[in-house]
Amino acid sequence: MGRWEPNARLRLVRAALDLFTEQGYDTTTVNEIAERAGLTKTTFFRHFPDKREVLFAGQATHSRLLAEAVAAAPGSATPLEAVTAALDAISATFTSDHREFAARLQEVVAGNSELQERAAHKRAGMAAAMREALIGRDVPEPTATLAAELGVLAFFRAFARWSDPADQRTITDLARRELDGLRAATGTLG
Amino acid sequence: MGRWEPNARLRLVRAALDLFTEQGYDTTTVNEIAERAGLTKTTFFRHFPDKREVLFAGQATHSRLLAEAVAAAPGSATPLEAVTAALDAISATFTSDHREFAARLQEVVAGNSELQERAAHKRAGMAAAMREALIGRDVPEPTATLAAELGVLAFFRAFARWSDPADQRTITDLARRELDGLRAATGTLG
Repeated sequence: MGRWEPNARLRLVRAALDLFTEQGYDTTTVNEIAERAGLTKTTFFRHFPDKREVLFAGQATHSRLLAEAVAAAPGSATPLEAVTAALDAISATFTSDHREFAARLQEVVAGNSELQERAAHKRAGMAAAMREALIGRDVPEPTATLAAELGVLAFFRAFARWSDPADQRTITDLARRELDGLRAATGTLG
Repeated sequence: MGRWEPNARLRLVRAALDLFTEQGYDTTTVNEIAERAGLTKTTFFRHFPDKREVLFAGQATHSRLLAEAVAAAPGSATPLEAVTAALDAISATFTSDHREFAARLQEVVAGNSELQERAAHKRAGMAAAMREALIGRDVPEPTATLAAELGVLAFFRAFARWSDPADQRTITDLARRELDGLRAATGTLG
């Protein structure tokens, strides 16, 4: 590692989102992102493999936290209680820095089909992590798949609401409400 | 259009899957696919924008069929009954030719993260098509999202079973069974 760069990762994310918003995702280069952040290209590549992954930085951590929280839930927890614990665990990592980014992140992704594909894959990976952890708790299929999918749906619905600065609720609260709403909706499918 | 090429589209899909399986997706070129199919590169590009899209050829048609079937379901149909009609509609398009390809298609996609991203995006697009059609039937949220997601989950679970040549059930029957199983599982979430 080179010299210590305070908050390098966060500075790179902020610079990338600024540039993607200002001039578009496709035309922005890694060099420009590093320069805007006041860092070198080498520092960039110490944190991210390419510009796309700046937008999906938390995926491995999120999937690990989800799986660990499901596994750590009490033995008496129902499938949805274990999923609730998992949503609580990742929600706790979403700070006010993330909130600042959330709306712009969603806008950049919405405007680019390659990024939409990557986002869909991230969601699938998060669902798979919870599903496998639920199966590890002896939750049978298709209950494990269903509970994991509801958890991911609830989280991303909550994230979309949370990115609206007018909504002052925490993402933890929003995710729990969305999960409750989806559970209630299972009674209205006909 | 040039001279008529009988079954050009199907020949290209078969040639692409053969080559992807034999020598890998990354190293296979459009030229090789066209040559193996006994067609020209021009004919290839009349059917597909690139080699990746050979694997996701049906997406626009599938999304349209799903939306149309949801919209055309009787006014008295429940959300899941409308989704069942949609699964019946796309299942009817899966012929024995598709079955021949299904297992190899899944194997090629499973081995490549770019293709997994594309597949996840296809699933998201199919869910969005059904969700919007359900909203058009005045199904409220989050019921519309939930019903659409269950439909997509059921379809891809059915597709995976159907691709096993040992399973002789139709994809229509398998998709209906998977949807019934997911609906029953909503009572086991806790």
